[in-house]
Order: sequence, then structure tokens, then C-alpha cells
Amino acid sequence: MENLQGKRIAVVGAGAVGSYYGGMLAHGGHDVRFLMRTDLETVRAHGLTILTKGQKVHLREVKAAPTTEEIGPVDLVLIALKTTANAALEKLIPPLLGPQTALLTLQNGLGNEEFLAARWGAERVLGALCFVCINRTAPGVIHHIDHGSISIGEFRRPVSPRGRAIAEAWQALEVEAHAVDNLAGERWRKLLWNIPFNGLSIAARAHVAQVLADDGLRATARALMSEGLDAARRLGHDIPDEYADWQIERSYSMGGYRASSMIDFEEGRPVEVEAIWGEPFRQGTAAGASMPRTETLYHLIAALTRK
Amino acid sequence: MENLQGKRIAVVGAGAVGSYYGGMLAHGGHDVRFLMRTDLETVRAHGLTILTKGQKVHLREVKAAPTTEEIGPVDLVLIALKTTANAALEKLIPPLLGPQTALLTLQNGLGNEEFLAARWGAERVLGALCFVCINRTAPGVIHHIDHGSISIGEFRRPVSPRGRAIAEAWQALEVEAHAVDNLAGERWRKLLWNIPFNGLSIAARAHVAQVLADDGLRATARALMSEGLDAARRLGHDIPDEYADWQIERSYSMGGYRASSMIDFEEGRPVEVEAIWGEPFRQGTAAGASMPRTETLYHLIAALTRK
Repeated sequence: MENLQGKRIAVVGAGAVGSYYGGMLAHGGHDVRFLMRTDLETVRAHGLTILTKGQKVHLREVKAAPTTEEIGPVDLVLIALKTTANAALEKLIPPLLGPQTALLTLQNGLGNEEFLAARWGAERVLGALCFVCINRTAPGVIHHIDHGSISIGEFRRPVSPRGRAIAEAWQALEVEAHAVDNLAGERWRKLLWNIPFNGLSIAARAHVAQVLADDGLRATARALMSEGLDAARRLGHDIPDEYADWQIERSYSMGGYRASSMIDFEEGRPVEVEAIWGEPFRQGTAAGASMPRTETLYHLIAALTRK
Repeated sequence: MENLQGKRIAVVGAGAVGSYYGGMLAHGGHDVRFLMRTDLETVRAHGLTILTKGQKVHLREVKAAPTTEEIGPVDLVLIALKTTANAALEKLIPPLLGPQTALLTLQNGLGNEEFLAARWGAERVLGALCFVCINRTAPGVIHHIDHGSISIGEFRRPVSPRGRAIAEAWQALEVEAHAVDNLAGERWRKLLWNIPFNGLSIAARAHVAQVLADDGLRATARALMSEGLDAARRLGHDIPDEYADWQIERSYSMGGYRASSMIDFEEGRPVEVEAIWGEPFRQGTAAGASMPRTETLYHLIAALTRK
């Protein structure tokens, strides 16, 4: 895949993230087919609206289908389901597969590339980290609030021509996109923040500014980062201590930002417990790291979210 | 103090615990004076009622006063304030002191004997652990639900004649009382259970049976106990691993028991954060123990209860 021209793209999980990144490609003239359920009739009738950077992108004609059988084989699948719904992929993915179909997971945390690779072959799998504040504000309406960059990499391989081609397709649409060589390392860098700040948002009911204002919670956040740094290094990702310090520093400008996990928790929606805490804890300890705080937080959040 | 005959006794903190242990001594004919505020008029008018073991103990004439100045110097002070109100002792204790006045804290957790010793002299101080399920169900009415034993020891000294005399006074009233040589060791034994089970009741909103039924929480509880065992041993209290296992085992019979901290937390009352988590963490780490789970739980509970 040298570029995305003329390629068929499917979006599985057309929530805010899938609708935004897939919708921008459709806006750029790519052949994008959305798997939709809740929003299907609205989107068929009224199209998809993306409010982004003061602009309104309106896609009048959206290819949306209620099943992946109706979509059929494609060249690229963007997977943006919540990780808590990964089991549904077992049935959703096969109808989309041709011999060369690439699977790009935009999902959070660890374990998603592994899930896809184990079922449909490691050679198909890419992953991406999305740094974006985005909401679905009504059926068929996506509000892109801030940021928006996406880092794309191959599963356990350096960046490839197809990875670059996908990044370039978004870049052409003024979506900040990067092809990265060490996807797993990038995932750990993002987790260094998500483990403490998403975690404490649930376990201590504290948004970012509250964590930073409380000596005990701030120290706990930094200690969780140290456990993550140790785990990441043992897994071959050399992240310096200063990166954690910098993540704490830059968090001061976030104010009362509520992490997505906190919103999910408060609204009674599933929280991505295994992707954000369980799998990092398991991978880190399997590599010899000591992660007692991460483990404690993991078990607390698992218990709190099971209720 | 060879026995409590003819001695004056004051009770500071006449909640359920203070009213029960002080009330039983008054029932036995001892001269007990209660510091009371909320319940003062009711108790003066109607006395104090203790429902215990199918019996109703009614004390018609109760010596109750609104200030310790009105009580004046006594031989023994029973202190049963919540530890979160310890600062109030600075003014409450001095009017009760004669040259030989003994101070017996019935309070939870660590740091209470130290608090008294630093202000009024180590030689005055004793401490007790109360193993009792008790509630104040109405003004002047105490409902003794279950258990009731009390272990009494000197502060950093072996058991003394006065410690034995106090224990015997309760024993004579069929309150199970023991004089113990190693008060601090007994406190750590009790904390081995309180740190995880009271802690997880707040941090995971899980009562005893829910902690035991959840693999992650049960493992976390046992790991917290291991941290406590290490701390206790470094502080000179040789508690075997089997003691922690036995505490887990015996917890299965408690069912949906809600720890006192959980009730306090749910009802918005102060939680004894420093006595149960903060001080054990500080004493343990000062002695060289590694207590990352205890520390995490401490900071979470401090943040959750500050709101």
C-alpha cells in the first residue's frame, strides 16, 4: 500500500474517535464505510457533521452499514471500538478481510494489537495513538474540541510504507499525523500519564488539578509513573525520568480536565480497565518490574467499575 | 493504684465506646463522671441505657458535666474521643489532672499514646484496644451488639499493677478484659486487619464479604497485611505470617459487616485517616519497611475523605 488513493476503508466503532478520523478521510475523498448501529438512520438521513477548529465539515453522503457483511472486504480497517467491547471483533472483522487487509487499531492502552495479531495475523496489524479531545454531542455530530494528532506504527516492526501512506492521507487533510518506529514505546509513554491520572480520577474522584493540588495524590501519581518507567525500560523502551517529570509539569495547564475514564465511570459506562491498568501491570511484572501501586490501583478500579 | 475502689474516673468522649466501658464501671458502683455535650440534658433527665447481651442496664443517676473544669481532677481518664478530634484534648485534659492521674486511651490506631505522652508525661499513659461492635442508637442509649473484649497495656512498658487493676474492674462486671505486656504489638495486630479491610471499604466501597469475594481485592488485602507484618517486625513485634492468614480466614464469617470507617465515610463523618493509615505508614517506613500499597491507600483515603 503506497498510498490510500482508491483504497477501501472501513471504520469499526464509529463513536467520536472513529467518526472523526474516518470522517476526515471521507471528507478528503477516500472511500470510507462506517459500521453504525445507533446512529445509522440519522447519518443516512442527515450525514455526518464534524465541528473542528471553528469549521463545520459536513459529509452529506456517508456510506454507513449496520453489519460488516454489508461492507465486505476492504483494504484498511480502522478499529475504534472501546477495548471493553473487543470480544465483538471476533465476528465483526472476518467479513472485512481480504488477503492484504490491514488492521489499524486506534484503541487505548495495551493488548489491542496483540488481540488482532493472535486472531488475524501479526502482519496485518498496525496501531495508532490518538491525542485528541473529542465528543459525540448528538447522533451524527462530532465535536472536535482540541488537539488531534495521531501516531501510527506497525505492530512489533519499524514503520512501513503503508504506515507512512496512512499518515500522509491524514496529513493532507491537516490532521497532524506521524508514522512512528516504536509503537509499543509510544504506548508506554502515553500510559505513563494515563495510569496515574485516569486511575486517580476514578479511585480518588480527583480531576487533574485536584491530583496536582494534593501532596499525597501528586506523590502517588509520580510514584506510579516511576513504576511505569521501570516496566517500560525492562520491555526495551528507554524513556528518561525527565519525561515523567515533564508530563507532571505540563499537566498543570490542564486545570479541571476530566480524563475520559472519569467521565465513563461517572456516567456508568464501561471503563477500559484491562487496557489501561491490567495489561500494563501484567506485561511489566512479567518483565520483572515491581509495580505494587499500579497493582493496587488496578484492583481498586476493577472492583469500583464492576459495581 | 492497686484497684479502682474509691477512685474517681472521668470519661472524655462519651460516644458509644466511652459510654459503654465507662457506663459498665458506673453500673459496678465506681465513681464515673462523663464529659457530655449533645446528650447532656437527655442523660441528666433520663440516665444512660446500655442494651447488652439481652440485658438492659439502666443507670438512672449519671454524673455528667459539660466541661472538664466541672469534673475536676480524677485518678483515671478514659479517652474515647475520635482521633480526628485529638486537638481538643489540649484543653480538655488539664483540668482532670492530679499528680498521679492515669490517662487510658481507648482510641483506634497508632499515635494516641504518643500524643498524650508528649503533652502530659509518658508515665501517665496507658492504652487499650476495644474489640467491640457497639452503636449509640439514640441520645443516652447504647446498643452493645457483639464482642466487647478490651486489652489494656502500659505505654512502652510491661503491664503494671494499675493496668491489672483496671482490667480487673471490668472483669468483675463480666466485661472481658485483659492486661497485656506489649500494647504496641497488640495495636499492630489489630491494624493488620483494619488497614486493609477498613481501607478497602472506603477506597473500593466494598464490605468484608465483597473484599473476600473479589480476587484482586482479596490479594490486595493480603499484600497490605504483608506490608504491615514487615513494619511490625521491624518495630520489634514478632507476628507470624499465619496470623495474617488466620485474620483473612476468620473474616469469612463476618459477611456483609461494614467497618466503622466505612460507616463514617458513607455518613460524611470524619474518618481516622492518620491513626489507621498515616501513622502506621510513617512508623513502618521510618523503621525501614517498604509499604507502597499502604501508602497508596493512605493517600487515596486522605483525598476521598477530605471532600
